[in-house]
Amino acid sequence: MTATPAPRRLLTIVLAAGEGTRMRSGVPKVLHKAAGRSLVGHVLATALVAGSDALAVVVGPGREDVAEEVAALAPEARVFVQTERLGTAHAVLAAREALAGGFDDVLVVYGDTPLVRSETLSRLRAPLARGAGVVVLGFEAGDPTGYGRLISQGTSLVAIREEKDASDEERAIKLSNAGLMAISGAHAIALLEGVGNANAKGEFYLTDVVERAVLAGLAVAAEAAPEAEVQGVNDRAQLAAVEAELQRRLRAAALKEGATLIAPETVFFSHDTKLGRDVTVEPNVVFGPGVTVEDGAVIHAFSHLEGAHVGRGVSVGPFARLRPGATLGAKARVGNFVEVKNAAVGEGAKLNHLTYVGDAEVGPRANLGAGTITCNYDGVSKFRTAIGADAFVGSNSTLVAPVAIGEGAYVGAGSVIVEDVPADALAIGRGRQVTKEGRAAKLRAMQKAKKAGA
Amino acid sequence: MTATPAPRRLLTIVLAAGEGTRMRSGVPKVLHKAAGRSLVGHVLATALVAGSDALAVVVGPGREDVAEEVAALAPEARVFVQTERLGTAHAVLAAREALAGGFDDVLVVYGDTPLVRSETLSRLRAPLARGAGVVVLGFEAGDPTGYGRLISQGTSLVAIREEKDASDEERAIKLSNAGLMAISGAHAIALLEGVGNANAKGEFYLTDVVERAVLAGLAVAAEAAPEAEVQGVNDRAQLAAVEAELQRRLRAAALKEGATLIAPETVFFSHDTKLGRDVTVEPNVVFGPGVTVEDGAVIHAFSHLEGAHVGRGVSVGPFARLRPGATLGAKARVGNFVEVKNAAVGEGAKLNHLTYVGDAEVGPRANLGAGTITCNYDGVSKFRTAIGADAFVGSNSTLVAPVAIGEGAYVGAGSVIVEDVPADALAIGRGRQVTKEGRAAKLRAMQKAKKAGA
Amino acid sequence: MTATPAPRRLLTIVLAAGEGTRMRSGVPKVLHKAAGRSLVGHVLATALVAGSDALAVVVGPGREDVAEEVAALAPEARVFVQTERLGTAHAVLAAREALAGGFDDVLVVYGDTPLVRSETLSRLRAPLARGAGVVVLGFEAGDPTGYGRLISQGTSLVAIREEKDASDEERAIKLSNAGLMAISGAHAIALLEGVGNANAKGEFYLTDVVERAVLAGLAVAAEAAPEAEVQGVNDRAQLAAVEAELQRRLRAAALKEGATLIAPETVFFSHDTKLGRDVTVEPNVVFGPGVTVEDGAVIHAFSHLEGAHVGRGVSVGPFARLRPGATLGAKARVGNFVEVKNAAVGEGAKLNHLTYVGDAEVGPRANLGAGTITCNYDGVSKFRTAIGADAFVGSNSTLVAPVAIGEGAYVGAGSVIVEDVPADALAIGRGRQVTKEGRAAKLRAMQKAKKAGA
Repeated sequence: MTATPAPRRLLTIVLAAGEGTRMRSGVPKVLHKAAGRSLVGHVLATALVAGSDALAVVVGPGREDVAEEVAALAPEARVFVQTERLGTAHAVLAAREALAGGFDDVLVVYGDTPLVRSETLSRLRAPLARGAGVVVLGFEAGDPTGYGRLISQGTSLVAIREEKDASDEERAIKLSNAGLMAISGAHAIALLEGVGNANAKGEFYLTDVVERAVLAGLAVAAEAAPEAEVQGVNDRAQLAAVEAELQRRLRAAALKEGATLIAPETVFFSHDTKLGRDVTVEPNVVFGPGVTVEDGAVIHAFSHLEGAHVGRGVSVGPFARLRPGATLGAKARVGNFVEVKNAAVGEGAKLNHLTYVGDAEVGPRANLGAGTITCNYDGVSKFRTAIGADAFVGSNSTLVAPVAIGEGAYVGAGSVIVEDVPADALAIGRGRQVTKEGRAAKLRAMQKAKKAGA
Repeated sequence: MTATPAPRRLLTIVLAAGEGTRMRSGVPKVLHKAAGRSLVGHVLATALVAGSDALAVVVGPGREDVAEEVAALAPEARVFVQTERLGTAHAVLAAREALAGGFDDVLVVYGDTPLVRSETLSRLRAPLARGAGVVVLGFEAGDPTGYGRLISQGTSLVAIREEKDASDEERAIKLSNAGLMAISGAHAIALLEGVGNANAKGEFYLTDVVERAVLAGLAVAAEAAPEAEVQGVNDRAQLAAVEAELQRRLRAAALKEGATLIAPETVFFSHDTKLGRDVTVEPNVVFGPGVTVEDGAVIHAFSHLEGAHVGRGVSVGPFARLRPGATLGAKARVGNFVEVKNAAVGEGAKLNHLTYVGDAEVGPRANLGAGTITCNYDGVSKFRTAIGADAFVGSNSTLVAPVAIGEGAYVGAGSVIVEDVPADALAIGRGRQVTKEGRAAKLRAMQKAKKAGA
Repeated sequence: MTATPAPRRLLTIVLAAGEGTRMRSGVPKVLHKAAGRSLVGHVLATALVAGSDALAVVVGPGREDVAEEVAALAPEARVFVQTERLGTAHAVLAAREALAGGFDDVLVVYGDTPLVRSETLSRLRAPLARGAGVVVLGFEAGDPTGYGRLISQGTSLVAIREEKDASDEERAIKLSNAGLMAISGAHAIALLEGVGNANAKGEFYLTDVVERAVLAGLAVAAEAAPEAEVQGVNDRAQLAAVEAELQRRLRAAALKEGATLIAPETVFFSHDTKLGRDVTVEPNVVFGPGVTVEDGAVIHAFSHLEGAHVGRGVSVGPFARLRPGATLGAKARVGNFVEVKNAAVGEGAKLNHLTYVGDAEVGPRANLGAGTITCNYDGVSKFRTAIGADAFVGSNSTLVAPVAIGEGAYVGAGSVIVEDVPADALAIGRGRQVTKEGRAAKLRAMQKAKKAGA
């Protein structure tokens, strides 16, 4: 019987101090979003899935906003500030306290490179368990111009050669440096401290760790990832490219799980969208964060969902908006030009047209006519509306909260309801119709005379 | 003088018994839809256009749903059940009664391969008239790995070689087996019965008909189709790919006929959409089945149409929904956030904003103000609304059906109309305005105090 | 000291007489639109940016519509009518009066080729200043089949060879004739008059100017442009391709300027859309002409804007429509299913749901509840609505213009307001609620009985 080796403890350091000037933005680069989550949020999530026992995030000075995002998404992460911009090795050393924590493996990843998969991180780290001191992530560049090339001898990486220093033979190498690195925890501080800054910019480059490791007699290896995974974000076009790749993955996963996307390229998912089996999503649907759709539901074209739960067999849209807190029971119907916010809609209830339901409960099988509006706000506070099971609310009705419509109650079309309606009661609140024969013709003549005189 | 040969009678057999487990769906594969029609519906339609005199559809056991779809779309088709899954030749023989019907030509096609064109079926069948016993449809595979290769000598097909049995030379052949076949009606049953099941799976393969025909001394030929035509549907990604190809065809046809599609890739047609000349379709428009748009109409962005007729010069949208039974007369206008269902809208009538018109007639030149709603449902039954020519319905009015607004009548804004309004009459049904000076400030103070106290 | 040479005076002649029969349209080809502007409008704008001192547009007989478009977009342009269709050289000579105006340089461009950049026109013209008599624009054709090839010797163009007359060697040339030309103003009329029509169609071809210039001993040069720039529009598919290229350029420019486009390929710009820094545009947004969006605004999915100004930090949509004359002050919010037309919305005002505001002023911080509708039209005239700062309009209210709601006033939900409401006053105009216990159950029974009896 062979003893299982003790699991290796992993620290992942996320470099998130880049300024991102090419974004031309007041928002720090790593807080820009893709698939409904910040770039750094994607990286943190991947690091956790890859089995990180600890996370350290290095941010630029004064970047409380990044620190707050990190705290919100990964409270266990420690945030370190790189007070001066002296290069990537210097940035990693800003997390020295974390590095000193006795971890077996250290991964260095980038807050602006959100497409790297957790499996890739695991592969990058694996050689450390076999004794490597440093492992560098490379990618086969379609056009390697401008990238550092990974120079190997046999299975060993011997150098990362910058393009300007490369021989013709080396330039022909397509395996390029992606920047991500795995470092033996036992050697990390020493290797990083060994990096010098005798170069044109006077910076401490993380890539120099390779040379230090070779000099120290440590094994150095390279692992390769697909080019699409190591795409970084430096400008808005690259941000859009990253979004596109994330959407491509999310769409493929939804199809594989058994959803029908009639035109996958027109459906925009959030990183956490959950679709059940035999869900149909028509063209042009946008999912914000926090949406779950159960089996057999149909999301019709031009729908926008965020923070919502859609039950089995529900029909949403076209032209529906579900906002946070919308919960639709099985077989409910939310139709065109309908907004539901912070409301529980019961099984089989119908909100078919031109309706706003906010801060409300709608009972099972209740029917809200076209133009029904819950008045949940009086200019100062929000109030709730309760509509009972099997209630029928006539079209163009206004329900002034706080108000309750009882089970089986009936509200006449065009009513303004300000008082509770008991179960099975009928409530009407509207003006009485007055009809004046022949008056329209006179009115029209007056209107025209007025216009002519104006 | 040469006698015209008698037309050859054609039987098309549609194999539709596949389970489609990779769809991960409770719906049988051939009932999934593309361009608004089931996959098997596309195949049946193509078979009819190709001149089939009879149709036979082979379904799996217990698939009444497929049988019903077939009956609805092609009542003349006979449905046969393949009770056991013993291979494609066995499936074809399930239609033995049809095969025994004395047809000259038999086509075997697949219910999950909806992109094959009728011209291709005609080409596939043509060699039979020149004496061939069997004709196999091939395609030049971009990557033939895994496909059976069509092995020819001169103009004769001598074998379909499975990849695993192929020599290196044969593997280099790109012409691959698409599965579709034309068989001489005179020999079909004998050839099919000659197929054995001495293979790994113990199944009767249709491809073995080629060998049987060669042994029987019959001429065997191959015809080629573009790879895109023979794309089958086995999972949701392939379903989306088929949808995309159908949309590509429909968009190209619409452009060729003289419609402007500003962004063709964002317009989704149904298989039967009909657009007139100089119709403009803005980006992001979805056509469900049964839509006709006449010359010069403009369908603005974000519109959704189904079962609707749009007259000459009409303007629809943006953000309009036309549901089945909507018929818009020439130059009518249906604007943003407007839904029309089962309603005839007269020439030049205007429904410009936030309106629901259902189960109604709207006369020529009538004007419905923003927020007009027809209340066509009382919770139990549906009723109709009639609005006369040149009538003017003020904004936010509620028309409680059954009700008629006469020609030239005028409904005051915000009215609830429950009784008929005669022609040229004025009707108002709303509460009287009461204004209390200075009261808003007090109200606000009360609201704030209440909130603070809450 | 070197004297600056006098600026060379430039005449640009736009050929816009093509019939465009392949468009299958009642609208002349050059009036079809791309990115919100007619094709000829794009060409005129480019010609002006390229420094044209004068513009001449040659139109077909009876094309007042084209002449009007030219007059509207470039009042300084002279319009000439080509009375007979006798070829491109003949068309250019229709502008003889302009050619006689003593210009140094003459550019001949096409009204149906809107993608040529002004920099390309400047390059095309440049050799004239160095003494060339004629300069022809070429492009490296991906597939040159059917195009005339540019035959050069050294830096001189010696002929434009039609495909049918080309040798095998000449056919291998990929540099093809784009049709655009720069001609020395001093020689233009003589060269054009020298062109004969001894060819199959009996037409006078502009390309023959090259031969005339060579015979006259003038230097002839070629300049090259990317193929994408010289794409002409002859059918609706090419119109869509031109639109796609314009959108590609506009999206790239917006990203570069610091806007986030989550899915750039789903955002449709007008040629004149202006976006500030850190503007976010969600998927599926359409910009018509005349839209400006200031810094930090968010345009949510499914929004449609035209002729509108969106202030700093404003939130628009999803599902919002801004029509011409909509002006939104900083931090205003226009939410779902809301239409704003010809209305100034103050800073921080909220129009969150199902609202129509037309011909109105909405004061700062005013709050319009869901379903608020301004009734700006009485069937004959339009009237204005004024809503004061900090006013609160309850849901489903109807404001019948002309009407003014004072600052801080409060309108009860469901009210129809027909008289002005003073500042800080409370106004209510709605029916009183009447509730009848137990009546709903009876009503339902009656409805069902009626239905059963019907």
